[in-house]
Amino acid sequence: MIGIVGGLGPYAGIDLLKKVYDNTIANSDQEHLNTVLVSMPSSINDRTEFLADKTIENPAVAIVEVLLLLEKIGVTFAGIPCNTAHSKEIFDVILTKLKEKKSMLNVLNMITETILFLNTNYPNIVRVGVLSTTGTYKSGIYSEPLKANGYKVILPTIEIQEELIHPAIYDSVFGIKTVSNPINPKAVKNLLQGVAFLKKNGAQAVILGCTEIPLAIPQKEIDGIVMIDATNVLARALINKYSPDKLKGL
Amino acid sequence: MIGIVGGLGPYAGIDLLKKVYDNTIANSDQEHLNTVLVSMPSSINDRTEFLADKTIENPAVAIVEVLLLLEKIGVTFAGIPCNTAHSKEIFDVILTKLKEKKSMLNVLNMITETILFLNTNYPNIVRVGVLSTTGTYKSGIYSEPLKANGYKVILPTIEIQEELIHPAIYDSVFGIKTVSNPINPKAVKNLLQGVAFLKKNGAQAVILGCTEIPLAIPQKEIDGIVMIDATNVLARALINKYSPDKLKGL
Repeated sequence: MIGIVGGLGPYAGIDLLKKVYDNTIANSDQEHLNTVLVSMPSSINDRTEFLADKTIENPAVAIVEVLLLLEKIGVTFAGIPCNTAHSKEIFDVILTKLKEKKSMLNVLNMITETILFLNTNYPNIVRVGVLSTTGTYKSGIYSEPLKANGYKVILPTIEIQEELIHPAIYDSVFGIKTVSNPINPKAVKNLLQGVAFLKKNGAQAVILGCTEIPLAIPQKEIDGIVMIDATNVLARALINKYSPDKLKGL
Repeated sequence: MIGIVGGLGPYAGIDLLKKVYDNTIANSDQEHLNTVLVSMPSSINDRTEFLADKTIENPAVAIVEVLLLLEKIGVTFAGIPCNTAHSKEIFDVILTKLKEKKSMLNVLNMITETILFLNTNYPNIVRVGVLSTTGTYKSGIYSEPLKANGYKVILPTIEIQEELIHPAIYDSVFGIKTVSNPINPKAVKNLLQGVAFLKKNGAQAVILGCTEIPLAIPQKEIDGIVMIDATNVLARALINKYSPDKLKGL
């Protein structure tokens, strides 16, 4: 089965599962792939909060519990739909703990897959913007591997990051993690201002590097700039590893 | 945990999970409830096909396998987001098989919950229309318990059922089970014609009695007629049994 660690946040888990179905070649219920989504959000500490102030338990511990549960019931390829959980401080701990438990589970790396996707499908793009949580922003989850792969990285200023982008996700009144049905227009507006800023500074593509962002920005392109939905990339990578014949064309 | 048997169809499973989250009082990821969705669609035969021609294996067998898996990993309350699977020929077999296996799992009955919901929240409504698959239509999954509870049931004619409603779900070109992202306008049009017919014949409310239908008709009311989304009712019932303090007001 394909496994998904849900709950980070809950709607991002659903979004990844839906994108697995959307990218599968299937004309009836029966032709879809076996999938399981386990969401135990109360036990998984906020990832950005952990990166900012490491006094709380590393969310890796609870994520590993879910991954081992997934493996126990037959999952072979798993995805974690949370970009911030892909920081070295969290993701490397996840991989180490799985190894200690002699786990054979393949946990896909959403960041690596996204850069590979960009490279393969947009070979002419060199200037890449990133929208994300402040946790992802400060720990360079996308910036570092993008630079290492020869990209020029364009980020919001720290003011735009903290006053527009992060609140679009986390604000207790209008943030996507609080209100997702429907998304508050202020969250959309903030993120679009972020896209406009990245465009003005030369971005040819923008990575939507937080799984909540594509819930507010479903467009594939804005003003001629390509939006790279990291959740959709992860969904396609999961299908491609588990059952490549079932992957829809782009 | 709250458990969901996915895959009947896959998008209906996601829809139920989303409605569980939508109806939960939560202001952060961590405040959401523990949930698991297992979708193993290839092993679960089509429910309507089984009811029409019982030569294929009863889908109850594969559904029970999923329910036992859910129980094994900690699920206490489970829902099956497929109305047709609630026919006596399938649902009673599920309950019997669970009993044989000494299962303690509480499997909610979506039909019973929907009638209870109607009764509690719309005490003045007496004439109720039903839109469903032909499997649900012919086996009286809603009609019989509605009548037993004193309702006057209004159904499409068999021609409307077979030429408009069932194809909206199953047609291999425009049916919701084939194309869900986005839903084909012809599926929406067929279903709205069904609603109009039921209204003309006196329905005060319409039960959307197939989990695919609310994907095409998300409205709560059409022309003054109340739409009862059985999936949303099941989501609310799951929260109410598992953690009543977390249930949002209507």
